[in-house]
Amino acid sequence: MGIILYDLCGADRSIRFSPYCWRTRLALAHKGLDFDTAPVTFSEIKAIGGGGVTTTVPVVDYDGRLIRDSWDIAMFLEKERPGAPLFGGEAGVGLTEFVVQWGTTLTRALSPMLVKDIHDRIAPEDRAYFRESREKRAGGASLETLRARREAELPAFRERLRPLRGTLAWRPFIGGKAPVFADYAIFGVFQWARVVSPFPILADDDPVKAWFERCLDLFDGMGRKMPAAAG
Amino acid sequence: MGIILYDLCGADRSIRFSPYCWRTRLALAHKGLDFDTAPVTFSEIKAIGGGGVTTTVPVVDYDGRLIRDSWDIAMFLEKERPGAPLFGGEAGVGLTEFVVQWGTTLTRALSPMLVKDIHDRIAPEDRAYFRESREKRAGGASLETLRARREAELPAFRERLRPLRGTLAWRPFIGGKAPVFADYAIFGVFQWARVVSPFPILADDDPVKAWFERCLDLFDGMGRKMPAAAG
Repeated sequence: MGIILYDLCGADRSIRFSPYCWRTRLALAHKGLDFDTAPVTFSEIKAIGGGGVTTTVPVVDYDGRLIRDSWDIAMFLEKERPGAPLFGGEAGVGLTEFVVQWGTTLTRALSPMLVKDIHDRIAPEDRAYFRESREKRAGGASLETLRARREAELPAFRERLRPLRGTLAWRPFIGGKAPVFADYAIFGVFQWARVVSPFPILADDDPVKAWFERCLDLFDGMGRKMPAAAG
Repeated sequence: MGIILYDLCGADRSIRFSPYCWRTRLALAHKGLDFDTAPVTFSEIKAIGGGGVTTTVPVVDYDGRLIRDSWDIAMFLEKERPGAPLFGGEAGVGLTEFVVQWGTTLTRALSPMLVKDIHDRIAPEDRAYFRESREKRAGGASLETLRARREAELPAFRERLRPLRGTLAWRPFIGGKAPVFADYAIFGVFQWARVVSPFPILADDDPVKAWFERCLDLFDGMGRKMPAAAG
């Protein structure tokens, strides 16, 4: 049997950019599990498991059991494999959810800034739907307009990172000396940005950048092996 | 000997409004400790412990040892009294610091909205310094101008609470079934607002409001016994 992570891919099927799939990938590695990844484009998601199982990834096939949603997968792994905790007890679960929810606000803020770059990298058959849904979500602004605004939006985005920056001033990872699921959840957001866009989200002298680089090196450079978007 | 919490007070010395002192008060109660509070106005802080000890509160006199800073006090209590954990291990410390740092961004956002109300409640001898320092911090805007803007600022403030709201959708406290220091840290922010100002920061149907009410009831209504600001 074994473990398979269904992982969102671009037109180039080796390019994996989903922030949620990255969370899961690092969570599986954290638990010391061997797994393969199976690339799926947006259009292919609905066929996972024979169809009717999911409209989103990640999905993990764990010895024949299909588990979906990055949070539920992490909770499943924590129960199935209690060694090397991802959360750290009941209080840790709630605290981690807080960080994950905060991460969602980052994803939401970054989306308009990155969406044209994503469009250019996804499978051609996904682009028309992607453009239409994302421009609708942006109140009708074109992907090109959204990209043009990002320079002006960057300072406010970097200001948003203040709680993360403050936390990392005192320790190498949110989890302390070693990373936990909260690290992976936020890492996924910046890894997504790194893989889909050459736009420099993080300033070089930001402690958040130094933390991100440490995360890229985890598990034999699992994150770093995925190439950054070319400029 | 015993334990004394030096607690910021208003012109009415029974009114205690410091968000940082509230964190400490609940942390002491969480550890099951008996303690007294000693009210100090802004002007009196520098005389604590005979002088030269601190310019901020909370300060805790713990059997003759003076410990300052709400974070350091919580860490001290966790080490001194490991039962009833406030953090939940090393990962919990980092995760909690993240929530605490996020709480600081709330305090910063609320300050201009509440600062005139605070001014009106602090000791008369503290007011001139308070007005000058707060108006300077606000780029020269008067306290009256800052208060006048708050209705317009409220929707964005409530939007900021999204990660907290999302976390509390799944559990009664950030810590899960029971509160932890992260709950107390954020509670302190809203308790401060409740004690200094009649302005309704939280909408009645907000799950954050329901959580705040639960926090007010903790430890035999320790928070609720402090009267809310009259309108």
